[in-house]
Amino acid sequence: MAEIRPLILVVNDDGITAPGIRALISFVKEFGDIIVIAPDKAMSGMGHAITINATLRLNKLNSDLGIEEYSCSGTPVDCVKFGTKVVAADRKIDLVVSGINHGTNSSINVIYSGTMSAAVEGSVEGIPSVGFSLDNHALDADFTACESYVKAIVRKMLDDSIGKGFSLNVNFPNVPKEEMKGLKVCRQAKAYWEEAFDERKDPSGGSYYWLTGEFKYQDSGEDTDIWALRNNYVSVVPTKFDLTDYDAVKTLNSWNENK
Amino acid sequence: MAEIRPLILVVNDDGITAPGIRALISFVKEFGDIIVIAPDKAMSGMGHAITINATLRLNKLNSDLGIEEYSCSGTPVDCVKFGTKVVAADRKIDLVVSGINHGTNSSINVIYSGTMSAAVEGSVEGIPSVGFSLDNHALDADFTACESYVKAIVRKMLDDSIGKGFSLNVNFPNVPKEEMKGLKVCRQAKAYWEEAFDERKDPSGGSYYWLTGEFKYQDSGEDTDIWALRNNYVSVVPTKFDLTDYDAVKTLNSWNENK
Repeated sequence: MAEIRPLILVVNDDGITAPGIRALISFVKEFGDIIVIAPDKAMSGMGHAITINATLRLNKLNSDLGIEEYSCSGTPVDCVKFGTKVVAADRKIDLVVSGINHGTNSSINVIYSGTMSAAVEGSVEGIPSVGFSLDNHALDADFTACESYVKAIVRKMLDDSIGKGFSLNVNFPNVPKEEMKGLKVCRQAKAYWEEAFDERKDPSGGSYYWLTGEFKYQDSGEDTDIWALRNNYVSVVPTKFDLTDYDAVKTLNSWNENK
Repeated sequence: MAEIRPLILVVNDDGITAPGIRALISFVKEFGDIIVIAPDKAMSGMGHAITINATLRLNKLNSDLGIEEYSCSGTPVDCVKFGTKVVAADRKIDLVVSGINHGTNSSINVIYSGTMSAAVEGSVEGIPSVGFSLDNHALDADFTACESYVKAIVRKMLDDSIGKGFSLNVNFPNVPKEEMKGLKVCRQAKAYWEEAFDERKDPSGGSYYWLTGEFKYQDSGEDTDIWALRNNYVSVVPTKFDLTDYDAVKTLNSWNENK
């Protein structure tokens, strides 16, 4: 108890029982004291949602690993807020790790992603934060190839306090470790989702919809996260929460002069 | 029917019956054909959430204004996607206007805001988009002072196609029109929410929480949206969806060299 170990908050958006967060916990627990707070159900696509019009539950779990684990009725961002303000209210969290997500959060997916929004929330609160995602949606995705990279990044972030003012969006290609070519620092690729709504009829004849979509890649750069993943690199994109378009600020200032 | 008028999609996050969206509709309807798609309930704080694990409903409403109005069971971002992919699937939307939000979306609020996430989604889809918010949370907030500014901005965006690659985050101070000092193009102020969870007991003695918080302003600049609002300017922040921290990309590239 005398040793002061780093305090690491583990969150995700696929829910507390997802194999991805279980893998992440097993990778990071050697680095410090671990608190896990994760949604009690899948929360994919929740973006930076917070729960302000409803009540929240936080349930302490019996952890087979002997660590502090909680399920939360809220969003991934709510989980981070519970970590800093309730569970670790009297301690400093040294690192937020989010994931490992089942499915990539590269490119424009970053803005829809609960995994990355949780990491972004950590950085808003001044905590070095990283989101990890594997380019495989399957429940039985194999995360073993991610282990050495996760450990290297966590070690680097704890030692050097990398990540003040931004969070890291780390995506793994879905290949065995020996085919991974190393880390590549990238920018977010230009892309969007071409959505389609799958219209169906309920038993009373009323319409309802499922949101589906096709990913449209619009970037030919070799400095993007998508390029990195397609070439078997582990992509690392430093991700901001200041959304100001500074170039546009200059352009638009002519508005002021015209008024 | 022969005249081709601009097509404007009106969305919000406070819900289809909120006075703020009714005011916005009344301000913009002279500029073109209007489609309104808004959540069927309050969706504040939903950020960039999309509905991928549940079904969605879209209900055509009987509009007293004789325009196309729909309520949607989904998030503000879902509303924009319904606009481009279902309601106006065979037409080009020329402008997305979101709001007018009851409450400011300046500073860090932009990342939690459903109002602004809807505008950001418009810009992701290549449509000039703007979110409007008034610094007054009250249901009976008075939006009349916003009218001439909303009209000037909408006219400018339709005429000049301003807003390719970014959306505008427009916030109004809660003062009468004669005290508003004009538009000011700004950056997003540095700030965060110091949350507190209000813990209560349910009738069975179990704990539940309400998320509350205090806004912490960390910026002394006079080029921020908060400074503008406090000095009775209408703040305009061009808002990006490329979250890459390009300065950090340079710093972190030393990682590659170290590997």
